[in-house]
Parts: sequence; structure tokens; C-alpha cells
Amino acid sequence: MSVTAPAGFRAAGVTAGLKPSGRPDVALVVNDGPAHAAAAVYTQNRCAAHPVTWSRTASGDGVVRAVVLNSGGANCYTGAQGFATTHATAELVGELVGAGAADVVVCSTGLIGEQLDRDRLEAGVRAAAAALAADGGADAARAIMTTDTVDKQVHVAGEGWSVGGMAKGAGMLAPALATMLVVLTTDAEVTAGDCDRALRAATRVTFDRLDSDGCQSTNDTVLLMASGASGVRPDPAAFDDAVRAACHDLAQQLVRDAEGADHDIAIEVRHAATEDDAVEVGRSIARSNLFKAAVFGRDPNWGRILAAVGTTSAAFEPHTLDVAVNGVQICVGGEPGASRDLVDLEPRAVQVTVDLHAGDATATVWTNDLTHAYVHENSAYST
Amino acid sequence: MSVTAPAGFRAAGVTAGLKPSGRPDVALVVNDGPAHAAAAVYTQNRCAAHPVTWSRTASGDGVVRAVVLNSGGANCYTGAQGFATTHATAELVGELVGAGAADVVVCSTGLIGEQLDRDRLEAGVRAAAAALAADGGADAARAIMTTDTVDKQVHVAGEGWSVGGMAKGAGMLAPALATMLVVLTTDAEVTAGDCDRALRAATRVTFDRLDSDGCQSTNDTVLLMASGASGVRPDPAAFDDAVRAACHDLAQQLVRDAEGADHDIAIEVRHAATEDDAVEVGRSIARSNLFKAAVFGRDPNWGRILAAVGTTSAAFEPHTLDVAVNGVQICVGGEPGASRDLVDLEPRAVQVTVDLHAGDATATVWTNDLTHAYVHENSAYST
Repeated sequence: MSVTAPAGFRAAGVTAGLKPSGRPDVALVVNDGPAHAAAAVYTQNRCAAHPVTWSRTASGDGVVRAVVLNSGGANCYTGAQGFATTHATAELVGELVGAGAADVVVCSTGLIGEQLDRDRLEAGVRAAAAALAADGGADAARAIMTTDTVDKQVHVAGEGWSVGGMAKGAGMLAPALATMLVVLTTDAEVTAGDCDRALRAATRVTFDRLDSDGCQSTNDTVLLMASGASGVRPDPAAFDDAVRAACHDLAQQLVRDAEGADHDIAIEVRHAATEDDAVEVGRSIARSNLFKAAVFGRDPNWGRILAAVGTTSAAFEPHTLDVAVNGVQICVGGEPGASRDLVDLEPRAVQVTVDLHAGDATATVWTNDLTHAYVHENSAYST
Repeated sequence: MSVTAPAGFRAAGVTAGLKPSGRPDVALVVNDGPAHAAAAVYTQNRCAAHPVTWSRTASGDGVVRAVVLNSGGANCYTGAQGFATTHATAELVGELVGAGAADVVVCSTGLIGEQLDRDRLEAGVRAAAAALAADGGADAARAIMTTDTVDKQVHVAGEGWSVGGMAKGAGMLAPALATMLVVLTTDAEVTAGDCDRALRAATRVTFDRLDSDGCQSTNDTVLLMASGASGVRPDPAAFDDAVRAACHDLAQQLVRDAEGADHDIAIEVRHAATEDDAVEVGRSIARSNLFKAAVFGRDPNWGRILAAVGTTSAAFEPHTLDVAVNGVQICVGGEPGASRDLVDLEPRAVQVTVDLHAGDATATVWTNDLTHAYVHENSAYST
């Protein structure tokens, strides 16, 4: 499992003392080659954190030798001192693993607006470098957790090559990513262009369609590194499929561990005029606090679904809309259909299907319900 | 106070039995003239309820004789039968007050996707017509309450004329209105054009800037009726000011009574390049569940404010942003400013000020915090 399952990678996770909890908080993943192709996607938030600013440049040339990740602080809105911390971290990692700082990606997660303790962070990076191991993937996966209750790892096998990965994120899952750090590795012999194509195609239909609470993070990063160590050059379509499968698996793990969630909700929008329309409608429903609170209350309140549909610019006629919840067609042609009482919302998995009767496009957006635990966890986070 | 404070209006509120609670649920407000000028604004939700569809036409010619309002059911997504109920209600009111049905506005609020009990509704309308009184405004204001904990009334005096009003709404307060029914009355001698100008200008900076939970209702209606009974023709600016003051007062009453709220939050965005930018930024912050949960937790987590700012398309540079909460400048130039510990979030009123340093425009958006009580109330609404 995880980032060290493909050949050519070592990883480690250590405790640097950045987290008050004393749990592991610094992870390092190194690509030992022979190749160092890479691609990454980052948050679209205009208030991006310093590590994102740094890493955009570092990964921009398609070459990444290592990625260092810390929990215990986002290093966002921390001014020149904060950027210097990111820069120094990259320099130190480069020195320790024999690479240039410009080939080191840095990821941080935690509270915004607080300086990282640079001494502790640097000591942690040194400890991680010393602990690097070909079976260190699980340790690394644990060191990037914040409010995650479980670590998240994946391994997708190809023919003689594979894709591994780890992710953290348990809230702020929103369009175009959200305090979500994902590192994917592969030993396939692929170019940076292959990585970029596969990663963008995969994130578009996986991480980009998670919308746990509509809040977009300042630190999101999804990085794919390719070592070429298998010596196998996969068919591009097979590689794309494997990367997408890895992203899908990690995305579902993120939804299942969303902060305080009681239900995992898949919203499938069918027969939209365009895929964009389908995504817009799905996201609008996923962001309706009223709908999400209703699911928490085991209440199949389809009026709240249609009220959310009505706020979109998607093509549809109100009197032709159908809504099913967990297989029960409770709204047909914009009127009450089967009885709400037939809908069982006790299971954690909830399937909402909205039929727009406007075309042939389909998309699914994933979200969670709005619960007391969500409010509790997010009202007590920084205090 | 209320809709019968201006001369020329009678009102009533009665119990028709539409609400399981047995509380009053049908209100009637009649304009006895001599004039019957009116204007209205409605929800922008494309899934509008039948009463909205009816009333858009009824008020479209600038003449309204009466408005009938029911709680206990939204009459939305109820098909042809639902529209027939709205139509029949308007016909009955017209017959009872000596007007054409086409001059009767109908408003409904409650659960979506359930038929109204037409027999009970009609009996209620007859009882309300029989109970019409020149001091019936308070009864009417109570009959439109749903989850409101207090009735909401206003009276703004001009020189020899005045504006009265009532409102219901305690959730779903969102852009471009939200299950919010507002009836304003005036005895000023004004035209339908005056009403339209004053009402649009007023709602744009009051009701349209409430964003309690980002959910837009299917039934919102704000109606202004003018009787001309004072015989006084006010200066247009004075009339506009009075309508805006009435709307502002009612909007603040709505925020203070938002479902489950613990704090009322005013988000002032200063030095925006345009007023639209200021509103976009304010609304983005108002919709951040993470920010709203932090306020509930008395946590001045300004990182969540800036993360929300970063999702907008407004003109700004991240490193020049300032944020103050309750007067404490906790972020200056995109870096930590005064200590978070200085911010007292115990009082119900919270003032957030974001300075974009990008121009001269300012706007304020009002919202509430995200609380356990919000989740509780909205997870148990229809069950």
C-alpha cells in the first residue's frame, strides 16, 4: 500500500513536535529514480499558502525529487518569515537527499496565520531523512493526518508497474480541492506530460467533485511522482485509468472520514444538457445546508433538493424534474411521487439521483451531511 | 406598528388548521384605497412556488388590492392541483373584498411538495375576511410565522404619511431573498413606479444582503402596497428613505431571529474596487461554514475569513488584506496582527471588517453563526 508500494521510492514519518498532540507531523517521500517525472495540481484559492507558491514553481518543470509534508501549521498568511521557512525547508531536504531545492515540493496543513516553529520543523526533517525506508509509506501516511481519524492509502496495480498513494483531509473538501494533501507515486516509465495528463483527468472527476462543506482550502496539493523504476512503459490509457482509480479510491476515503459526518452522500445528476450543468446542479445540492441537515435528520426532504436545483443556471424545466433518494422515486415530473416514508436514511451511504431531462450528460458529486459533530469539531478547532 | 399603521389598510390573522401546531396560519391585508399602487419583488429561484408564479402576474400591472398569506405549506412542487389551489384562493379573496382575483397577491410558506388542504384554507380565508380590522396588523404578523420565535413588525413615520410592514422568516435567508414573506404598506400618495423604484433600491441593500445559510427559497415575496389615504405626496427621496428604513429594520429582525443562531454577524467589506466586489466578498465569508462554526465557538479564526476571500473574483492582493473582528485588528497586510486573545466573541453582535485596499466601495452583508441548534432545527423540520 501507499507511496512506497511502487519501486523507486522511500518514505518516512516522524514526530517533530509541531502538533500539540505529540503525534507524527513530518513526512518525507523521496523518488530515487532512475527518472523523476512529476505533475501537480494546487488549490485555486487566490489566498494560497507559502508552500503552494513555492511548490508551483518547484513542480512547474515536471521534475520533482522529493516532497516534504508537515501537519501542525498551514504556513499561510505568515508573511516573509513564513515564506523563508518554506524555502529553508526545501533547501534542507535538497541537501539531505542530494537534490536541488528547486526539485523539492513542500506541503503544509494546519492552522492559518501562525508561524511554524522552524527549529522543530528542521529537526523533524533531519529525523525523517534519517528514517527514510522502502517500507516507510504507512509512517508517512500517518504523519500527514490532522483531524483525520484514519490514515488513507491506496495501491493500484498495473502490468509490471503500479500506482501508490496517500492522502490527508477530513474537512474543507470543496471544489477544486480542499485542505487535502495527496501524494501519488508510480514506478511506470512515463513522462512529465503523461503525469500531467493523467493527473488532471483524474482530479477533474474525483477530488474536484468532493464538496464536503463548500470551503476551499489555501493549501491543497495533489502531486504525482514517477520513478520509472519498473522499466515498464504502460499504455497511456491504462496509466490514466490507474491514476484515476487511485484518486477515486482516496477521494472516497476522504468523504468517508469527513469531519463529523454521519452520512456519505452521492448526488448523481442525470440527463443534463452538459457535464458542466450536471456538476453545477450536483454541487449546488451538495452545498445546501438545509438539505444536508435534513439527511442528518433522516428526512428525505426533496423540496430542499429542488430549491437548490433552482438556484443554478443549468438547462431544465421545473415541471419535468425527477428525484430519487436511495432508490425511491419521491418526486416525479416536479410533483410528489412515492411516499417519503418509503425512504430509509439509516444507512451511512445515501444515493440521490436527480434527472433533469435536458440531455445526455451525467456527473456525480460527493458530499456529507451537516451534523452536530461537524459544528462541534469546527467550532473548537483552533482553541 | 405593522401593516395597519398607515391609513387605508385593514388586516386579520386567523387559525385555519393548516399548521399541526394549531397556531394562526392565514393572514389577509386589504388596501381600501383610494389608490391601489403596488410593487413587488420575488425569489430568483427558478423552481418558484405556485403562489409566486401567480403573484408575479397579479402585481405586474402595479395594482394590488389585497394580499393573502398562509403558513403551514409552501404550495411548491404540487403540480396542477397546487396551482388550482392558489388560483381558487385569489378568486375567493377577490370575491370577499370586492376585487378581481388578478389584483390579489398570494403568498405561501412551509414544507415543499405537500398539497395544501383547500377546504381548510378557504374556510380560513373566509374567517380572515370576516375579521378584517383597522388594527389587525399584529394578528396578521403572527399568522405568517413559521419557525419564527417572535413576530416582526415595523413602522416608519414620514410627514403626514408613513410606511408600515411585517415579515416572516427565520432561516433560508439567502441572496435575492429567502423563505421570507414581507408586506409593506404606505398611505403616501405614490405611483406604482414610485413603489417599484423605492422597493428595488431598498431590497438591494437590505434583504438581498442577508445570507443566513446560503439557501434560497422558492417562495420569497416582498410586496409594497400604497393606499394614498394620507393625501400627502412625499418627496421621492424621503419616500425611498422610509421604505429603505422599514426594510432595514425588518431585515435586522430576521437576522436576530435566524434559526438556531447564537451570533448576528455583520461583515463589512471596505475599500473594494466596486460595490459588486464588496458584496461578493461579504457573501463568500457569510457562506463559509467553517468561519460560521468558528464564531459559534468564540474563535476569531481569521484564516477562515481570508480563505473565503480567496475564493472570490474580487480585485485584491493577498498581502494587503486587513481583518478586524469586534474592533481588534487581528490581520494586518496579510500577516498576523493583534493577538486573537484580545477578541471578545461573547456578545451576540459580531462585527467583521475586511479591508481590500483596492478602491472606494463598501458593502455590508449580514449572517449568523453555525450552531448545534441550527443543525437540530433543520434536521427535524418536516418530521
